[in-house]
Amino acid sequence: MSLVIKNADIIGKDGIWDVLIEGGKISSISEDEDGDEVLDAEGKYLSPGFVNTHTHAAMSLLRGYADDMPLQRWLQEKIWPVEGRLNEDYVYWGTKLACLEMIKTGTVAFSDMYFFMESTAKAVNEMDMKAVLSYGMIDLGDEEKRISEIEKTEEFLEDMEQYSSIQPALGPHAIYTASKEMLGWCAKISADDDLLVNLHVAETEKELNDFKQDHDVSISEYLKEIGLLNERLIAAHSVWLEDEDFVNIGQNKVIVSHNPTSNMKLGVGKPMDHSKLKENDVKITLGTDGCASNNNLDMLEEAKIAAIQQKMPGYPTRLPAREAYEMITKNGAEALKTGGGVVKEGKAADLILIEKNVSSVPGHNPISDMIYSMSGSDVTDVIIDGKIVMHNRYVDGEEEIMKTAKSKAMELVSEN
Amino acid sequence: MSLVIKNADIIGKDGIWDVLIEGGKISSISEDEDGDEVLDAEGKYLSPGFVNTHTHAAMSLLRGYADDMPLQRWLQEKIWPVEGRLNEDYVYWGTKLACLEMIKTGTVAFSDMYFFMESTAKAVNEMDMKAVLSYGMIDLGDEEKRISEIEKTEEFLEDMEQYSSIQPALGPHAIYTASKEMLGWCAKISADDDLLVNLHVAETEKELNDFKQDHDVSISEYLKEIGLLNERLIAAHSVWLEDEDFVNIGQNKVIVSHNPTSNMKLGVGKPMDHSKLKENDVKITLGTDGCASNNNLDMLEEAKIAAIQQKMPGYPTRLPAREAYEMITKNGAEALKTGGGVVKEGKAADLILIEKNVSSVPGHNPISDMIYSMSGSDVTDVIIDGKIVMHNRYVDGEEEIMKTAKSKAMELVSEN
Repeated sequence: MSLVIKNADIIGKDGIWDVLIEGGKISSISEDEDGDEVLDAEGKYLSPGFVNTHTHAAMSLLRGYADDMPLQRWLQEKIWPVEGRLNEDYVYWGTKLACLEMIKTGTVAFSDMYFFMESTAKAVNEMDMKAVLSYGMIDLGDEEKRISEIEKTEEFLEDMEQYSSIQPALGPHAIYTASKEMLGWCAKISADDDLLVNLHVAETEKELNDFKQDHDVSISEYLKEIGLLNERLIAAHSVWLEDEDFVNIGQNKVIVSHNPTSNMKLGVGKPMDHSKLKENDVKITLGTDGCASNNNLDMLEEAKIAAIQQKMPGYPTRLPAREAYEMITKNGAEALKTGGGVVKEGKAADLILIEKNVSSVPGHNPISDMIYSMSGSDVTDVIIDGKIVMHNRYVDGEEEIMKTAKSKAMELVSEN
Repeated sequence: MSLVIKNADIIGKDGIWDVLIEGGKISSISEDEDGDEVLDAEGKYLSPGFVNTHTHAAMSLLRGYADDMPLQRWLQEKIWPVEGRLNEDYVYWGTKLACLEMIKTGTVAFSDMYFFMESTAKAVNEMDMKAVLSYGMIDLGDEEKRISEIEKTEEFLEDMEQYSSIQPALGPHAIYTASKEMLGWCAKISADDDLLVNLHVAETEKELNDFKQDHDVSISEYLKEIGLLNERLIAAHSVWLEDEDFVNIGQNKVIVSHNPTSNMKLGVGKPMDHSKLKENDVKITLGTDGCASNNNLDMLEEAKIAAIQQKMPGYPTRLPAREAYEMITKNGAEALKTGGGVVKEGKAADLILIEKNVSSVPGHNPISDMIYSMSGSDVTDVIIDGKIVMHNRYVDGEEEIMKTAKSKAMELVSEN
């Protein structure tokens, strides 16, 4: 079965094109293509789908549950007690809801770290998305806990073998929640099995200060000693880095997942230093973080906030629209090795159509319009690995997902 | 003719309600109302429509025309040359496009300062919106220019008498572009005729520094001496205020229009100090600024950015969702004296329906969901002064507006 997208206005490419998709890949782009199935893109932009490199999908169940609170109270009184009652069922429905929202706003692939990841995988697979999934490992220095976290991860890695579009990864939570021994185990497995590693890095000043009290080296040196500082590491947040860290992260080809909305909303104190990362040639990608701290999964909104946040201190030329667009398409796809991220022959057909609605008029610069003006709601069609996952803003079974996720969420928080 | 909105889930009010609208006003809210015309709000939130207190509507023609540039180059090479070629026709179509976008994203009233305001008024009137309109006066200290600007304003004020839903206002551009004499004239007319005044205040550090070089008093003292520092002044931006200004602005009941997205995108250096304004009981409202510096007119996005921007420096409890929501509803409506802003008997029927889509699920806190998760695209119906202006996401004549505005915009920039 081949699919042809007719009359596509491809972002970044002049003219109107037909795009032929075969075997999940873009096989040809020309002025006239035929296929078994036809999708008309008249009046729409064609873009690579977006890639969200850091989220906790199932937290969609906690959207709006607790906002505008001091960080510690938020965690201790609201988030952790509820997370303590999570089970497979909650995570499954939370992930279904998150996948639905991601598809609706043009995201084709994401990287996740959470609990009950077998449920996450099941949901992702049913929703036909691509994902890098990791079980969030926390041992707090306790050996018994470490052994059980490693066991859980091993079971999870084995369970993932059944899925072709899911990449298992390692998810040591952070340097302050994962012991050096556990981080070392992750480094070894990551190297042996070529697995990505999701890690929260330098999200808050407290994290940095606490680390400095206990260690004589920088965070990046610490990760380097452990064997984690390499091209398989996705370092989320990366706000409170020190000068040496920027160089180390650059030299060791670490991928950074920038989460500006979450950082702002939780008040981490300052923006990630995009300029210093860029000076060191770091591949910067974007993530929404979970819905408890954002509170949505709209990558176009995330890209706008990223772009304007960097300009605020007096640099209106920083992080231009084109760079923000690359962060959520090409860079994200390369980071998660989706095979997509660019509309080009041979690339994975992870594509979206975006309606040229009022906020895209007049259209002097489509990339600028996408980043600064349009929103995820303008996405009408989503194709993942050549399969139409959303058509005319409709995803199969969406009513049921919203309804059930809502009732599960209410049940989850009812005891708090 | 009466209109009844059935089955409405009113934001901030428990239960499901019928809202009866007669003579442009909410006449009754109960569990069962009947009316000549019926609008079913099943599955939707009912909210007061949003109020945008600072924009330059016709600049929608320049959306995406020039971004990511240094401020002076942006103005001198791009914005000013194009603005120099503006005429009535361009402003008319630019405003039509902006009104369409505002309606589509739930805005019912706005405050505008620009040129060819008779065209703006014509467009606003045709689109059935409410607006406070002001001609942007710039004399740069030149007496001849001052006389002509005053004449233009007088003609504009006279022309406005034909419109019932448009409030004429005075629009001295800024303290660095309008002479003390012209500002004084505005103060007098504002007092005599009870007119609002739109003024850019302390947008950039340069503006503050230049002012301090030439004056021994603070900006607020200067405005006070002139007679402009009162409850009729809408002070846009208000970023680079000094300590004394916060007190003066509070004591004199000046309305502030906060424009966080524009401030961030243009890199004005720091966020407006919401906390100090709040300490001084200032009525804070929100504005998008024009589409050349935002680049859209989505008030829900603006509210989210306002709320998270204030938290960034380490204050996650600042500007909570409820306050942000009040800024774009109640406060804005009070500032522009629309008579709406609250869903209550006797208030103007300036209302919107918002679909409970995926980003509103599970719905633990609807106000939080609206501010932090949902977007203007979720608005399905807009009622202004009791008239349905958008129904099921459709505005009469929208295709024609988008098409014509696009071609006018291309014509406008073609000579640059």
